Order: sequence, then C-alpha cells, then structure tokens
Amino acid sequence: MTPETSPAPADSARSAPGSAAAAPIDRSRIRHAWRRIAGRIRQTPTIDVEVDGRSVNLKLECLQRAGSFKARGAFNRLLAALEGPESAEALRGAGVVAASGGNHGIAVALAAADLGVPAHIFLPANAPAAKKARLRALGAALHLHGERYADAFAASQAFAAETGAIVAHAYDQDEILAGQGTVALEWALQRPDLDTLLIAVGGGGLIGGIAAWHGDAGHGSPGGDPVPGGTAPAARIVAVEPRACPTLHEALAAGRIVDVSPGGLAADSLGASRVGERMFPIAQRHVAASVLVEDDAIRDAQRWLWQHLRLAVEPGGAAAFAALRSGAWQPPPGARIGVLACGANVDPATLADSQPGEAE
Amino acid sequence: MTPETSPAPADSARSAPGSAAAAPIDRSRIRHAWRRIAGRIRQTPTIDVEVDGRSVNLKLECLQRAGSFKARGAFNRLLAALEGPESAEALRGAGVVAASGGNHGIAVALAAADLGVPAHIFLPANAPAAKKARLRALGAALHLHGERYADAFAASQAFAAETGAIVAHAYDQDEILAGQGTVALEWALQRPDLDTLLIAVGGGGLIGGIAAWHGDAGHGSPGGDPVPGGTAPAARIVAVEPRACPTLHEALAAGRIVDVSPGGLAADSLGASRVGERMFPIAQRHVAASVLVEDDAIRDAQRWLWQHLRLAVEPGGAAAFAALRSGAWQPPPGARIGVLACGANVDPATLADSQPGEAE
Repeated sequence: MTPETSPAPADSARSAPGSAAAAPIDRSRIRHAWRRIAGRIRQTPTIDVEVDGRSVNLKLECLQRAGSFKARGAFNRLLAALEGPESAEALRGAGVVAASGGNHGIAVALAAADLGVPAHIFLPANAPAAKKARLRALGAALHLHGERYADAFAASQAFAAETGAIVAHAYDQDEILAGQGTVALEWALQRPDLDTLLIAVGGGGLIGGIAAWHGDAGHGSPGGDPVPGGTAPAARIVAVEPRACPTLHEALAAGRIVDVSPGGLAADSLGASRVGERMFPIAQRHVAASVLVEDDAIRDAQRWLWQHLRLAVEPGGAAAFAALRSGAWQPPPGARIGVLACGANVDPATLADSQPGEAE
Repeated sequence: MTPETSPAPADSARSAPGSAAAAPIDRSRIRHAWRRIAGRIRQTPTIDVEVDGRSVNLKLECLQRAGSFKARGAFNRLLAALEGPESAEALRGAGVVAASGGNHGIAVALAAADLGVPAHIFLPANAPAAKKARLRALGAALHLHGERYADAFAASQAFAAETGAIVAHAYDQDEILAGQGTVALEWALQRPDLDTLLIAVGGGGLIGGIAAWHGDAGHGSPGGDPVPGGTAPAARIVAVEPRACPTLHEALAAGRIVDVSPGGLAADSLGASRVGERMFPIAQRHVAASVLVEDDAIRDAQRWLWQHLRLAVEPGGAAAFAALRSGAWQPPPGARIGVLACGANVDPATLADSQPGEAE
C-alpha cells in the first residue's frame, strides 16, 4: 500500500526545488506556526528511559491529538488559510480536501471538525471499513475513487480545481512542513541539551520541518524571547526509514528525488514513493545521517516500547527507535539522544503477542 | 479476588494508629526517599488534555518501571534497608519477601533484580500462569501456598520470621508510603499550579504518601532548596474508589478502619479489604473528599484514555479519571485539576473493543 504517494500539488507559494533558496521554512515561520496552533494541539511530553544501558529521551508524539504529529501540520494549514480573506472564504465554503485514509486524513478531518469547516477526504473504494467509519465519525465527507491511492489523489486534485477547496497535502506544502517543525521547537524548549534526534521519514514532512528548525540554529532561542546565553544549538538530525520504504535514503544517495516502490510493515504510514520537493534541499543540507532498518527491528522496537513502557506505537512511529535498538545506527560516544515516537495508530491486539502481564 | 488483603506486618518503626502523632511521613522523609530512588525509577511526564471542555493535567505514572507507581515504594523500601548494616545483611542474605501476584509483587521482584538481592514472592497456587511466568522472568523465587491470598500472606510472614528476610508490605509500611509520596513531590515540581488531585485508592499507600506530602505544606519548596516565594501550596486531595472496593470511603464514614469485601472490575489492583493503619490518620486529616465510581464508569474511562490518547491504563489506573468523566465528582469552579493514571498493567486486547483505527 502506498497511501500517500503522489505528485506535489500545485501551490502558488512554491519555491524552486533544489535551488539554493529552496529552504522556505525557517525558525521564524515555525515559531509563527507554533503560536498559531497552540491550544489546538497537545504539547506532548517527553520521558527519559534506559535502553540497553543508555539513557534516551523519548518524545511522546504518539499521545498527540489524532494519534500522530500530523495534527500539527493539519491545524497549521487550516488556520493559516483562515487568516487570508479569500482562502478563508474558500475554506468555509468549499472546505478542505485531502487524499489519505491514514494519519494525515484523520488529522485533517479532526482539524476541520474543530474549526467548523467541511472536510472532503478522498480514498480508494477498497480502503478498510474501519478507516472509513473513523473518518465519517469525525464528520468528513468521503469520496471513494478507484482502486489505488493515485486514483483517489487525482480525483481530489480535480475536485479542488473544480470547487476551489483548500488542498492539504500530506507533506509537500510549506504550512504542513512548518506545522510539523513545531515538534522541534517544543522539544528544544523541553530538552535543550539533546544533540542528536532520530526521526522517521515517509514523505519527509516531519523531518523536513525538524531539520529546517535545527538547520536555522543561531537565529534565537526556541520560544523567540530574549534568553540569557542567546541561541539554541542545532541538533544532529538522523533520518530513519524502513529498508522497504527508502525514499529519502535513495534520494540523498542519488542527489535528486527518485521514485521507489514502498512496502513492508510500516508502509501504511511511511510508504511514500518519493520525498517532497520542499523538504529535499533541507534534508540535503541538514540531515546528518540516513539509516535503514529492517521490518523485524521495527517489530522488536514496538514490542520493547509496549513491554517496558506500555506505549502503543505504530510501526512507522517505532522506526526511529528501531534504529537505536537494533544497532542499525551507532550513536557517537557521549551523544545525548532524543527519539521521536511519532504515531500511535496501532491495533492493540497486535501488541499482545509479547509476554502478557505486567510491564518491566 | 483480594490479592493484597492482609493485616499489617509486624514493624518496629510503627507508630500508634489514630494518635495525634500518627503521621510518620512528612515532606522531609518524602524528599529523602525521592533522592534515594532517583535513577532507579522514571520521572514520569504529565500531559494536559481537554476532557469534556475542561483542561486536565494527567500524570502518566502508567509509564513507570514495572507498569505502576509501586516501583517507587519497592525501591525505597529496599534501598533504605541497604543503608542499615543489619538490614543490609538480611536483605543480601535472606532477601526480600512480598505476598502479591500483582503490581506490588512485580515491582518488588524488579527492584530486587536491579539491586542484586533475592526476592521471595508468595502467592496462591492458583494464581494465573502469566503472573507466575512474569515473576520468574524477573528472577524471583516463587512460593505457592494455599488457594487464597491470605494463605500466601500467612506463609510469607512465617518465612520472614524464620529466615530474617526483609518484608515489603504492599502499602502499610513507612518506607512504602514515603516512596509512593514521591509522586506528589515530582508532580508539584512539574505543575505547582494544580490545586486538586484525583487519586485512586486500594490499600491506601499511594494516597497516604500523596496526602502526607500535601498535608505538610508550608514546610519548604518541593525540591527542598530555597526558592524565591518560599513554600509550595497544598493541593486538595480527592480519593477515588470503585463502589465495589470502598475501603477508605467506609473507614472515613465510620471514623475507624473497617473491613470490606472487595470485588468488581478493579479488584486486582484496588481490592484491599482494609486501608493501612499508617495511612488512615493521614487520610482523616488531609483527604478532602472520598468518591465512589461504578465499574461502568471505570471501563468508560479506560476506553476514553485509549481512544483519545492511546494510553493503556488498567482499571485501577483509570478509576481516578472515571470520577471526573462520569460526573461522580463535580469539580469546584476554577479548579486546576490533576488526575493520576497510576497503572498500565492491562491486556491490550481488552482495549481493542472500542472503535478500531485512529485516535481522536
């Protein structure tokens, strides 16, 4: 399944891909997004845990509204649209359109419900009944098209062109990137000491926003207010992908965006066929390492997080942790490591096959 | 089931129950415990969530080691014993003994394994196989006695008398109370603004320690260091019990400790037949309200926490939240509410019967 595999949508604010000026997201924009979505999203906590003798800080974005970081970008996209007279009229009238039966679709449907605007979610006709029910429960209008995600995406583009509805892309829009980047700001306020962050990658909206934040170090304190000592240091950003969905890994190796055929355990959340055009130049400059993990390592990471922390984390949400647990990524000596647990939308029954009973 | 129903053990440090001098736990002792167990337990995070239009701070003690707050008391009991020459020798030689197949037993087994001392866990022969396997995996020696918890408890007392092993009671010992009280200290450091805390009650070790902390307000800042502005204010402590396990509720109504016959959904963790003698005078003075909740409300609270937060919380751990969600407790206007999610040892398959798919 490749639910969020798509060309980037037309977007007037788009910058030239790959150009030197192609990093449209900086700390100032992320800070603006953070203030915009405050009160709509949860400030997710962090917890220090000992993992194989090493202390690691986990950011529990799996406790976010709608079950993943996607709520940040969705709210930022919609709230930004409500700030412009024309886009606000379009949003209130025609609504927002998204093509996704996964975390992005749920997040857009939730944000739209919260803000009282119509949501049109496009997905293939054969999408799981549970996902359809969930979206309907949030008040979204469902549009079922074709058998493949690409069919639904094409239909969503046509719908947007016809109705003037506001498009919320799953990862390749500035306000989506800036919204996801608020994770980095919030984490820096909580734990300014972390110097290495492990982040899972699908289409790259999350790591794009986070790398944009840390790539813009030296431009002031996280919250933007004067702080003695001045600037927040940049953390080293480590990208983690399943070996079966190596979109960023392949692109970095090739020096350009390339298409892959995603699959495997985490394809439902990380299964983009290519990274976003907006994030790629940011990643080229500010992602320090790109690591691939096996599906077995992801499953082991999920089990560890359940067994030791009673945390329900989906495969895509556990991928970053898997890089550390499996040894696929070797931390530099003395690294102060943060790992983002980015999504929780997992069937709890799949967690139960590890040892029953009490947590360690 | 009444797994932790027992008379209090003989303990030389015991104070006269009900007397004016019967509050043996104060901020100084809790602070001492907190420093003692630091590095052994996790500092559990808190998260603000909106519940039926109201902002509530949840403390996620369900992410604690061994899956519940019990790890705090267990580590404090064992580490304190290691500080005295005689008790250290007894602990290193004969070990620690506990009668519990539940959260307390697991916590004692984990603490003993961490500290390299033998653990002897007593439970009825008919205890669930999964619990036995879990305790054995932690390296504990299992002692199976009789058919009822009382049989196992009696055998554990005889074993301790015979061998000199250190007894770790589930709730009615000073170092257990002081250890559980570190939850209150930690929470006060994290969120000094909270003025009302909802706490579940079984035998009362947890609420006893928390009420001891808040009942001793005016005696310095949470961490014990000088702080501008001085003292931490006391929060209002609300006790929550299942209607089927009303040990504290009945005792407060009667003005003395009384026996009840516990049952219902949360009996595996809250099913004590009487509250501890040490905690009762503290509760009489410093528990502001005692609330009973129905099993249906507990189940609803578990489902809400899973559906909206992807948090796995056992029935006993969700009871305090149930008081708020069900309306069994009505918050005073303007209250700044904290709810303790105190345990996570739940079979995830039982969470899955709510709507599948993504979190709200």
